Amino acid sequence: MKKIINDPKNFVDEMIEGILAAHPEQLKCVNNDLRCLVRSDEKKSGKVGLSTGGGSGHLPLFLGYVGKGMLDGCAVGNVFASPSARQMLEVTKAIDSGSGVLYIYGNYGGDVMNFDMAAEMADMEDIRVEQVVAGEDVASSPKGKEDKRRGVAGIFFVYKIVGAYAEEMASLDEVKRIAEKVCANVRTMGVGLSPCIIPEMGKPTFEMDEGQMEIGIGIHGEPGIGKGELKSADEIVEKMMESILEDLPYQSGDEVSVLVNGLGATPKEELYVVYRKVAQILKDKKITVYHPYIGEFATSMEMAGMSISLLRLDNELKKLLKKSANTPFFVQEELE
Amino acid sequence: MKKIINDPKNFVDEMIEGILAAHPEQLKCVNNDLRCLVRSDEKKSGKVGLSTGGGSGHLPLFLGYVGKGMLDGCAVGNVFASPSARQMLEVTKAIDSGSGVLYIYGNYGGDVMNFDMAAEMADMEDIRVEQVVAGEDVASSPKGKEDKRRGVAGIFFVYKIVGAYAEEMASLDEVKRIAEKVCANVRTMGVGLSPCIIPEMGKPTFEMDEGQMEIGIGIHGEPGIGKGELKSADEIVEKMMESILEDLPYQSGDEVSVLVNGLGATPKEELYVVYRKVAQILKDKKITVYHPYIGEFATSMEMAGMSISLLRLDNELKKLLKKSANTPFFVQEELE
Repeated sequence: MKKIINDPKNFVDEMIEGILAAHPEQLKCVNNDLRCLVRSDEKKSGKVGLSTGGGSGHLPLFLGYVGKGMLDGCAVGNVFASPSARQMLEVTKAIDSGSGVLYIYGNYGGDVMNFDMAAEMADMEDIRVEQVVAGEDVASSPKGKEDKRRGVAGIFFVYKIVGAYAEEMASLDEVKRIAEKVCANVRTMGVGLSPCIIPEMGKPTFEMDEGQMEIGIGIHGEPGIGKGELKSADEIVEKMMESILEDLPYQSGDEVSVLVNGLGATPKEELYVVYRKVAQILKDKKITVYHPYIGEFATSMEMAGMSISLLRLDNELKKLLKKSANTPFFVQEELE
Repeated sequence: MKKIINDPKNFVDEMIEGILAAHPEQLKCVNNDLRCLVRSDEKKSGKVGLSTGGGSGHLPLFLGYVGKGMLDGCAVGNVFASPSARQMLEVTKAIDSGSGVLYIYGNYGGDVMNFDMAAEMADMEDIRVEQVVAGEDVASSPKGKEDKRRGVAGIFFVYKIVGAYAEEMASLDEVKRIAEKVCANVRTMGVGLSPCIIPEMGKPTFEMDEGQMEIGIGIHGEPGIGKGELKSADEIVEKMMESILEDLPYQSGDEVSVLVNGLGATPKEELYVVYRKVAQILKDKKITVYHPYIGEFATSMEMAGMSISLLRLDNELKKLLKKSANTPFFVQEELE
């Protein structure tokens, strides 16, 4: 296990201690619970609170997007495991400023169950909560059954756009409408070249031989379309883009933002080799790229691989995508 | 070879094509040479030009720091190989606006030779060039022989601070003075847990068994203090910090910035486990941390490992470190 860690039992808490030590001006914990994180700056009265949560092992997901222009709070689980409903509730109470809270999270059984429960508990405390579940991995469930899809890196676009809208003091209904609109316009597919190791388990989550890949893999190693021989970057991108483009579908004349996301061990150099082909394909299809994001936005620790996400833009989404943001893991100056 | 690439021969050019496709508003090439990159925005008349260069495989190094508040140009070599003097000269000519150019690069034989030659050629074209060679890896050469040290991730601090100073229209002599001051106050040490593969070679640059590590490793896999059994994060950090702290030395009452840099495959989670211990050690020594940077700043493709750099601050360096910057790989809003 090639990991720089201490006792695997303490991995998540020590990681959070490091994050809080590094970014105290941006993040703090609630009631001394390391798993309940909120923005350090003062709540803006009347602003809708935005909360997320999920398992650890996916940095910058999820807690890394808590900050100015994005989220207000996050509940943090163990590696690849949901945080508890109680932790979600604590975050909810800490970030509500009277205008309600929107939960935005990925479509995983444990998270759905716990966020549902947290929403019920919040209701009993007279905090209005709405939920939007992101699920845009086209490999995880076929067209027509979109509600079964896993949420992966595309949730970054939801956080970014919804965060900007909430800063403009939009109402909870409006913020929820925009979140659903982003979800409806984003599609993702991933490819994995190696497994990762959960520290407490000490062995790989699945097997993959040298020279193999799996297109459609999930960020916990969930199966994709099937394992196969590792192809060239251009061939991999062609196959992934075909599935993504035909799903929405994205069409000639559309304007999109692109996210090429590294899963962990894949170098930035390779992500740009991938983006080169993505840009060529989109140009050939007469789809315009507005502002691509390339880097690590949703990882699986040291898994090798990447994912491609497209977000179809209209004027409303583009205006919000452009706004500045400043979190411990993502900084953007207002775009032109 | 678990890489998402096409023909290894085209790896660097395709990566740069991807970068130029993604960031045309920030980067462009000179004379259609993909290996000669400069800022896209207009030159500020009278501003000292800042140039760097080096081998590929280290993103964001080197080209990723070309942009507002940091560098003006970069010559790009093949993987782990120096760019040519001619390419360095082309960049020099493109970024000079009459006030001269400062070369800032890491202490590697090929780079030193080629930058020296480029400086001579620039002189013949009546462009004044000064050079600062960064070398802060305490494991690469003992105290007293600092001029033999390799330049590694600490060069980020040189780019950041010198870039801010040049934007304030400081003279070439002044800009060089600050660059040397940063170099004099920064120290780094790395640890590697796995090798990386140069695409054209197709095999690891060195061997490392499962469960081993090498403290003091260079970003091309240069030998460190010797291979040994992989220790806990806290033990590794203690050993590295001891060497770093005693070298300058950093002392009680000092204020430092910290850079915890991932070499490629090591997840951000582990970098924060590392930072947690770094912060504890500094606190115990009564050394104040001003603003830590944690992430991938100087990589070795898919090598597992990390490095720790400390920069001792004074008022002049701190003021410049705070300034905003905006490059394809690094964005900072002005700090408080």
